[in-house]
Amino acid sequence: MTAKIPRDKENDYTREAAESRRRFIKEQTNGGANHVGRFSFEPQVLQGNIENFIGVAQVPIGIAGALLVNGEHAKGEFFVPLATTEGTLVASYNRGMKLLRESGGVTTTVVDDAMQRAPVFVFESAREARDFGVWIRANFDEIKSKTEATTSVGKLRDIQQFPASRFLYLRFNFTTGDAAGQNMVTKATQAACGWIQANYPIIERFQLEGSFATDKKTSFVNTLNTRGKKVIAEATIPAAKLKEIMHVSVEQIFAARLTSQFGGYLAGVNNNGAHSANGVTAIFIACGQDVANVAESSAAAVYAEITKAGDYYFSITLPSLIVATYGGGTNLPTQRECLEMMDCYGAGKAKKFAEIVAATVLCGELSLGTAVIANEWVSSHERLGRNR
Amino acid sequence: MTAKIPRDKENDYTREAAESRRRFIKEQTNGGANHVGRFSFEPQVLQGNIENFIGVAQVPIGIAGALLVNGEHAKGEFFVPLATTEGTLVASYNRGMKLLRESGGVTTTVVDDAMQRAPVFVFESAREARDFGVWIRANFDEIKSKTEATTSVGKLRDIQQFPASRFLYLRFNFTTGDAAGQNMVTKATQAACGWIQANYPIIERFQLEGSFATDKKTSFVNTLNTRGKKVIAEATIPAAKLKEIMHVSVEQIFAARLTSQFGGYLAGVNNNGAHSANGVTAIFIACGQDVANVAESSAAAVYAEITKAGDYYFSITLPSLIVATYGGGTNLPTQRECLEMMDCYGAGKAKKFAEIVAATVLCGELSLGTAVIANEWVSSHERLGRNR
Amino acid sequence: MTAKIPRDKENDYTREAAESRRRFIKEQTNGGANHVGRFSFEPQVLQGNIENFIGVAQVPIGIAGALLVNGEHAKGEFFVPLATTEGTLVASYNRGMKLLRESGGVTTTVVDDAMQRAPVFVFESAREARDFGVWIRANFDEIKSKTEATTSVGKLRDIQQFPASRFLYLRFNFTTGDAAGQNMVTKATQAACGWIQANYPIIERFQLEGSFATDKKTSFVNTLNTRGKKVIAEATIPAAKLKEIMHVSVEQIFAARLTSQFGGYLAGVNNNGAHSANGVTAIFIACGQDVANVAESSAAAVYAEITKAGDYYFSITLPSLIVATYGGGTNLPTQRECLEMMDCYGAGKAKKFAEIVAATVLCGELSLGTAVIANEWVSSHERLGRNR
Amino acid sequence: MTAKIPRDKENDYTREAAESRRRFIKEQTNGGANHVGRFSFEPQVLQGNIENFIGVAQVPIGIAGALLVNGEHAKGEFFVPLATTEGTLVASYNRGMKLLRESGGVTTTVVDDAMQRAPVFVFESAREARDFGVWIRANFDEIKSKTEATTSVGKLRDIQQFPASRFLYLRFNFTTGDAAGQNMVTKATQAACGWIQANYPIIERFQLEGSFATDKKTSFVNTLNTRGKKVIAEATIPAAKLKEIMHVSVEQIFAARLTSQFGGYLAGVNNNGAHSANGVTAIFIACGQDVANVAESSAAAVYAEITKAGDYYFSITLPSLIVATYGGGTNLPTQRECLEMMDCYGAGKAKKFAEIVAATVLCGELSLGTAVIANEWVSSHERLGRNR
Repeated sequence: MTAKIPRDKENDYTREAAESRRRFIKEQTNGGANHVGRFSFEPQVLQGNIENFIGVAQVPIGIAGALLVNGEHAKGEFFVPLATTEGTLVASYNRGMKLLRESGGVTTTVVDDAMQRAPVFVFESAREARDFGVWIRANFDEIKSKTEATTSVGKLRDIQQFPASRFLYLRFNFTTGDAAGQNMVTKATQAACGWIQANYPIIERFQLEGSFATDKKTSFVNTLNTRGKKVIAEATIPAAKLKEIMHVSVEQIFAARLTSQFGGYLAGVNNNGAHSANGVTAIFIACGQDVANVAESSAAAVYAEITKAGDYYFSITLPSLIVATYGGGTNLPTQRECLEMMDCYGAGKAKKFAEIVAATVLCGELSLGTAVIANEWVSSHERLGRNR
Repeated sequence: MTAKIPRDKENDYTREAAESRRRFIKEQTNGGANHVGRFSFEPQVLQGNIENFIGVAQVPIGIAGALLVNGEHAKGEFFVPLATTEGTLVASYNRGMKLLRESGGVTTTVVDDAMQRAPVFVFESAREARDFGVWIRANFDEIKSKTEATTSVGKLRDIQQFPASRFLYLRFNFTTGDAAGQNMVTKATQAACGWIQANYPIIERFQLEGSFATDKKTSFVNTLNTRGKKVIAEATIPAAKLKEIMHVSVEQIFAARLTSQFGGYLAGVNNNGAHSANGVTAIFIACGQDVANVAESSAAAVYAEITKAGDYYFSITLPSLIVATYGGGTNLPTQRECLEMMDCYGAGKAKKFAEIVAATVLCGELSLGTAVIANEWVSSHERLGRNR
Repeated sequence: MTAKIPRDKENDYTREAAESRRRFIKEQTNGGANHVGRFSFEPQVLQGNIENFIGVAQVPIGIAGALLVNGEHAKGEFFVPLATTEGTLVASYNRGMKLLRESGGVTTTVVDDAMQRAPVFVFESAREARDFGVWIRANFDEIKSKTEATTSVGKLRDIQQFPASRFLYLRFNFTTGDAAGQNMVTKATQAACGWIQANYPIIERFQLEGSFATDKKTSFVNTLNTRGKKVIAEATIPAAKLKEIMHVSVEQIFAARLTSQFGGYLAGVNNNGAHSANGVTAIFIACGQDVANVAESSAAAVYAEITKAGDYYFSITLPSLIVATYGGGTNLPTQRECLEMMDCYGAGKAKKFAEIVAATVLCGELSLGTAVIANEWVSSHERLGRNR
Repeated sequence: MTAKIPRDKENDYTREAAESRRRFIKEQTNGGANHVGRFSFEPQVLQGNIENFIGVAQVPIGIAGALLVNGEHAKGEFFVPLATTEGTLVASYNRGMKLLRESGGVTTTVVDDAMQRAPVFVFESAREARDFGVWIRANFDEIKSKTEATTSVGKLRDIQQFPASRFLYLRFNFTTGDAAGQNMVTKATQAACGWIQANYPIIERFQLEGSFATDKKTSFVNTLNTRGKKVIAEATIPAAKLKEIMHVSVEQIFAARLTSQFGGYLAGVNNNGAHSANGVTAIFIACGQDVANVAESSAAAVYAEITKAGDYYFSITLPSLIVATYGGGTNLPTQRECLEMMDCYGAGKAKKFAEIVAATVLCGELSLGTAVIANEWVSSHERLGRNR
């Protein structure tokens, strides 16, 4: 008979409840569950963040910096906490940050901001679905008011329509303040859909999600539009700096760029850069983000060129970067500390944080991109990593 | 002037070095860096895993289970550690595991296994590039021996060729034992490329990576072929169990499936399922995997149908799941404990671990998929999550 | 020295000019150019359609029908001219039309309609590009008036914005009446861009097309939105008719559908149906359409399900079907006759024509789809085609 | 009651049968069907090419050239017949051919060659499907012999495997001589599948096509591998020639290229070039190709760079160009004449023809690409086309 995970129905967020589950694990398995039990806070802070709590993963954090950002929200130097177990990652980002710092910093711009829920409505035929779309447009204000009755923060910006077969897929785009907002927009959209169903009688069937939000998935609908923030980081690296610090010429790095972006296009990548996922993930773990959003947040589009002066212009566009400085895991003890290191905790900080993430990613792209060419890639992994 | 992160040139993996960097952070920023300093091990274990170490992210772990797996490598019941800060995630996977346990378990099969490095060679024209491809095929044994001189574990399986313009993109496919193997295959491929360059004089230029490995990116080349393991999890859920435990009928869930997979196809997703990234990420953080690989490891292809008996056949194919039970972060204290809970630490366990991940993902798909239909989605987030 | 193609500078659209070029071809090559010289009209009708005219390709036309359409614009029975050299194509569509005719006809709905030109504007950085986007929105009315000064037919509907790097890609969406409209929207957009450049001084560079119209290419931006018409054709086929006429059961065809649409998803197709390109191309050649638009017009999304009554609901969405009943090649002699056979020549007929094309495509999908299952596929090609 | 299309059961490929159907069309519709009846050959040549023949579409042909090709199969100057109704198309290709002729010609290379049929086999679970794959590999020689019993021309090269869910999708790759070969490989694969089914008893279900051949569809599986020929055309254009003939500088065209290929990548195109579909389609119609294959044959990947000498290297890779010089519509009267103009009719000419198509496409890319920049695009359409 299957053993049942212990649970305290009164209050499950206690040291005792966690301890009883660790004991259970020791009895049922070969796992020790000792180190996982070494956390530095009271479990009751975890309500709303975890169930069946047994302890913590201790993920090592290294710091990289100073990162020099010329943003609209992030201005100046930052030290960026990166949680990872992959040797050379922190060193590589740090090296890129040095290059960019000496090149005048990274310019960052948030160009779009929206979180989605995408219900689908089913009709007898395409014709009714199309006509429903007309009605949705006509009733936008009413729908907006229904969504905003459920949240003081979320604002419905617009509703995109994607008709196909006898379906109308809608994409509700909200701004969600400093929260990532997935739950907020789900609840708000559900409220709107309740009203829609009550007022449009011929709907055959309805689903609150029709796979057009593409939560935790990368997709063209997200990269063409946005999900979370669309952020662009850019810089012009003087040829001399590239040579001095990275030991490559502008011509070398640009030739390599052309060849590898062509390869990526052929391979059908969702990211024509090098390894944005590394920086995004390490910051996300450190800072209490929903790390599963790496699936969409690591999508990227690099554009580079040689300037007339012979320097290297390099940019990375992160079309669907989902970040929060409020809610989710942001207020847990280590996570909040990491956000605070960059003065990114709490209200009014989400765009600043988005800019720092994008700037960090850009530094990592240039670091790996140049290491590959200068033949320093394998040797640095030899020195810092765990090859065998 | 930019402050410089302190570093101990003698031995940087000490409590003192970490402490001096936390002090530095406190001086330079508003961050406290107190909780991050509360770790339960000696920093010297971190050599090869992190640089500029300051402490740890404490990521809460919950356990879900028992998960019943009918694998070739994983057989029986498992309790799965999930590290996340997203409320309801553990509860949702746990609920799915209950359904599958009562339905006879999840069948898992590893159908492919390969890790890549993809160098590109540049020639004067397409003709030389094509002829070089003939030479590569003719010299496979020699190339293989060069790669295997660098590793006792990695075995070169085959080399795929992708000619375009005056380039030949090669994709070296290795098996890498129980390591994820990215560094292993990089070093091995570099050795081979050294030999190739020495023996094929007309190569104009060479890059060790041409964006055809698509490391840390999702791509068609990876989902069509594999990267890491290609694992399939499947199960047939009796209609009665679906009704009893999930409160939906087979017809309801299948209708919803058709509508949402059509939506996903239109949206251009790399994953026509619901949220594989959630389960994959939570296990990866807990178990010391390279979490940035969520970018490719969360790719998924769901196939479902109603059986002749009226039950629900459901499968998920993870084409590029990168897992390790050896190397990387697997031997760090909490990470190793989590692997040990599932008897997945060390040599000979990688395929077992891959099967458990895939089975977990399948449970999560059915849990979220049914909750959306049964209108239990928003309410469970209300109860367990952090809506506002 | 290279021979020069003869050209009559006074009037190149004469029988003599064509004859002199055919003679030139005979002299220069082994080609006979006899049959190509057998056309039934005066060359001067070709001005605006061809240069260096030598004669015609005689492409065989077969007719299929009657096709029964329940459209909003196309109502009743139509005989559809199909120009092709592929044996079995006409027979296959004809067979599908019989099935659909006996099943009550095909319901068709035009759900969207827009033709694009997509200029891109280059700025110093992403920030100026984003701010330019705000200005574009604010000046929409003025921009619209500039476009409409160049055309009495085209109407600017909206301008989509896709910011990335230091670029702003704009997508001007026009309705273009009964013309396909590519030239119309190019000219109109150019006029607008002239005004924009004159009034927004900090534009660094501008291109009239930035690859976001994706003319003559299939793309996600086109399938998610539209290019030309987005048309949906649907029908419910009674199980008995499917059995009687096609010799397959609903269960068989649906099982095959699930398997093949899963295959297509994995393969990364732009069309999860069977062979829409066959019907679209054959009609396009017959009816004077821009046949190169098959690249985008053949994109399709099939959705099928078994109804509660056990019948087969089948739909196909053509997201980017580009058709014209006015302009281009529509008024050439045979082309016009073919349009007239369906009463689709001239003003006010474009949506009707789009509906007929979509209905035809649906018939072909069901014909091939069932033939594959009933093992009639190879045998019909044996009988009607050119196997060897 | 629906009128029935007349058909002569004895011999339907006669002038009388065609005439009776044209009469029928005149009775049933408003269409005249006069010009379509003006063809220059005996209908009996059409057996295997069309059903329900009524006459022909007269599609105007213009010639462009001389095209200078430095191929392995096509060597020297060619005059290329282009069938189209789009004004400026012939002129534009002709202009590009002049540029390339004066730049030393187009180098062409066929780098791959295969035609596919992709059956899918269904099993109880993924495990049986995977094991079946092992058996397929072990029995390749036997399978090959079964396929080759049906054709003297087709040769089975290899079988790719794509496992997913409880399916094994196979992709049979054949060389097919000078025929396009779709019917040939279908018949050959069917023979093999009959033998497989007889010898592997636990197959639950089988389909001769599982959407992995992606006939008449563009897909990543086709662009990564091939379908038909993979052909590369390339050239280096001296800066002075570009300036003299096209009125643009290398820097201008390269800057435009970078911007537009970035746009295409973001838009999710299957073709990062300009308009390959135009050239491919016009040749296909003229030369009796299966024009519906434009769907996959127009896929393209452009790669360009500035050489060290400051000239412009430009290449286009057509990954899935399907051409025939034998079978299909190649022996019809005008179609054969057009092939003969390029000495491309009959056995041993398919690769030569593929090279000419690719070289033509390259010329068109450079012509349109430069016209857009030099602002000659709209004006040439004004002069030669049908704007209104």
